[in-house]
Amino acid sequence: TTYRIAVIAGDGIGKEVVPEGLRALRAAADRYGFEVDAVEFGYASAEYYLEHGQMLPDGWFEELRGFDAIFFGAVGWPDVVPDHVSLWGSLLQFRRHFDQYVNLRPVRLLPGITSPLAGREPGDVDFWVVRENTEGEYSSVGGRMFEGTSRETVIQDTVMTRTGVDRILKYAFELAQKREKKHLTSATKSNGISITMPYWDERVEAMAAHYDGVRVDKFHIDILCANFVLHPDWFDVVVASNLFGDILSDLGPACTGTIGVAPSGNINPDRTFPSLFEPVHGSAPDIAGKGIANPVGQIWSASMMLDHLGETEAAAGILAAIESTLATGGDTLTRDLGGTGTTASLGESIARTIAG
Amino acid sequence: TTYRIAVIAGDGIGKEVVPEGLRALRAAADRYGFEVDAVEFGYASAEYYLEHGQMLPDGWFEELRGFDAIFFGAVGWPDVVPDHVSLWGSLLQFRRHFDQYVNLRPVRLLPGITSPLAGREPGDVDFWVVRENTEGEYSSVGGRMFEGTSRETVIQDTVMTRTGVDRILKYAFELAQKREKKHLTSATKSNGISITMPYWDERVEAMAAHYDGVRVDKFHIDILCANFVLHPDWFDVVVASNLFGDILSDLGPACTGTIGVAPSGNINPDRTFPSLFEPVHGSAPDIAGKGIANPVGQIWSASMMLDHLGETEAAAGILAAIESTLATGGDTLTRDLGGTGTTASLGESIARTIAG
Ligand SMILES: CC(C)[C@H](C(=O)O)[C@@H](O)C(=O)O
Ligand SMILES: CC(C)[C@H](C(=O)O)[C@@H](O)C(=O)O
Repeated sequence: TTYRIAVIAGDGIGKEVVPEGLRALRAAADRYGFEVDAVEFGYASAEYYLEHGQMLPDGWFEELRGFDAIFFGAVGWPDVVPDHVSLWGSLLQFRRHFDQYVNLRPVRLLPGITSPLAGREPGDVDFWVVRENTEGEYSSVGGRMFEGTSRETVIQDTVMTRTGVDRILKYAFELAQKREKKHLTSATKSNGISITMPYWDERVEAMAAHYDGVRVDKFHIDILCANFVLHPDWFDVVVASNLFGDILSDLGPACTGTIGVAPSGNINPDRTFPSLFEPVHGSAPDIAGKGIANPVGQIWSASMMLDHLGETEAAAGILAAIESTLATGGDTLTRDLGGTGTTASLGESIARTIAG
Repeated sequence: TTYRIAVIAGDGIGKEVVPEGLRALRAAADRYGFEVDAVEFGYASAEYYLEHGQMLPDGWFEELRGFDAIFFGAVGWPDVVPDHVSLWGSLLQFRRHFDQYVNLRPVRLLPGITSPLAGREPGDVDFWVVRENTEGEYSSVGGRMFEGTSRETVIQDTVMTRTGVDRILKYAFELAQKREKKHLTSATKSNGISITMPYWDERVEAMAAHYDGVRVDKFHIDILCANFVLHPDWFDVVVASNLFGDILSDLGPACTGTIGVAPSGNINPDRTFPSLFEPVHGSAPDIAGKGIANPVGQIWSASMMLDHLGETEAAAGILAAIESTLATGGDTLTRDLGGTGTTASLGESIARTIAG
């Protein structure tokens, strides 16, 4: 099999970690017997914006839609393009137009990574955050009135649809059902956000009726965030609206100390369009260009991408290589991990382990 | 001076911890030379709701408006009244009608309380979360369309006004200016919530121009939550919209291990109506009626109330008594703190220390 992968490195350290992600991908291809046809695109970057006044070329949709997946680095360079322009002009377009309605992120304690939480060990924490990725609080409906006066009023709508809510819940229930603990936690705030969130709760209840084997509970987002810190071992699959999922999927990796190395999938489970895989970290202008960025998030994203493409063995192989390199990598590790290495030395180390 | 205090214990452990809060208040009154005239009200409780079909009597506004402050326990008894009914029918009414537009909560590592974070000591973490408390994401505007069909769509507006945003920012800047570090952090999400949040950012920038001495930074809410866990020592005063403040002011206390003992003020800084002080914890149906609830959040709320009333010495006296009792209280401490005591034994211990 040959997988056609669109590669978009984007800005900042995206350009440094994407090559290491590709190196891992090629090592996995050799070892597990498949081909990767990687095509690189320079858009979704500040450079492209400076030259063209927009983040993407007009034909991006047609150009990318036929790929099996998109392998993405990071976008954002606030000195040149305001974040809401660069993000809404690229990443958020992909999510919407390719209907990548699931944002999936692991929360996992890894060996060799210091967790900010006291007394937790690898194995103690291992769950998924499933975030709705196309609607909800990230809407483009609203505006300003009485601008510039003391009556100025600004309104933005949160929009939830039956289709949008049900499909993300279904994905989360299916995932929970496949796991050992079969436990689904829903993030809500129906005690304060009094229209959309009670609706979310209702749909969770309706969906739960179809999944007898799954244990379901719900927490308001405030106490849920607290419980990520206090009881990260309580969770198995956590499902949340766009905004709540955004928060939980940064907070979770923070609790495991992995925010710099966590991956994410922007997934279209119906496979009508390509899914997109990217590290959780951003473009990190402060360390860009130095060759010291940690490539693990990008490499782990390659693992998630292969899993999505059905190469489950290769996906597991990459994750195992990451874990063993983190545990034993010594000097080849990047500085944030206590080593003296570079983006490339860590990437090579992991690729060698994948090759076996 | 005599302070007229409306006392509303509410539901569950509210009824058990409020008497200990009053005990501390009386001890402080004796020691620091003021009088407390406390009047108790039985509404804002599930019992009241069962009898009257509403959470508050029609005349609540006139009845309470003349008090100097409201000393509140906890509301909520989901087996009897759905949370959004009990909360919107009581606490959220007080916040809005008495224009308590500031929700203020300390985040502070205390002696004798185990923090879930590794290697942090009392003194390392000591900041305030300032939450907008009347508008924003907690709106009552919106509704459903195409109900019960596959086109079902649910919309809720986030509403921000110049008045509402500017006054909370002003409060936060003033607070930051009074503190040693003079550092204000704004919670935003202008890269994803593209209408209201860029507005919030603009107002922060405009307000900052009037406070030269205050250092200002901003973080998107996702990474801000992460930084509460990773770098709680970075913060001094954190200002946030209603929803973001709700999240941060549970997450902060969780990071310091104090979620069961943290206080909060719902403050009307203009003093046109009474402010309301309550512990962060809820009514805790699971441990209600057993006499084992930790009263520290309620007692600490009494301290915040006195501070608001101008009794700063008494306020500091109560906080110091809490800290020394937590450090040395031994058996009188409640079980959640490792003691063998009861709500009353811990309350008495603190009151004795206040008396000096
Ligand atoms: C109970 C709920 C409505 C309330 C809120 O969200 O404001 C609570 O979480 C709080 O923070 O006081
Ligand atoms: C950059 C931003 C718009 C984005 C989001 O909020 O979705 C990011 O935080 C993420 O989680 O991928």
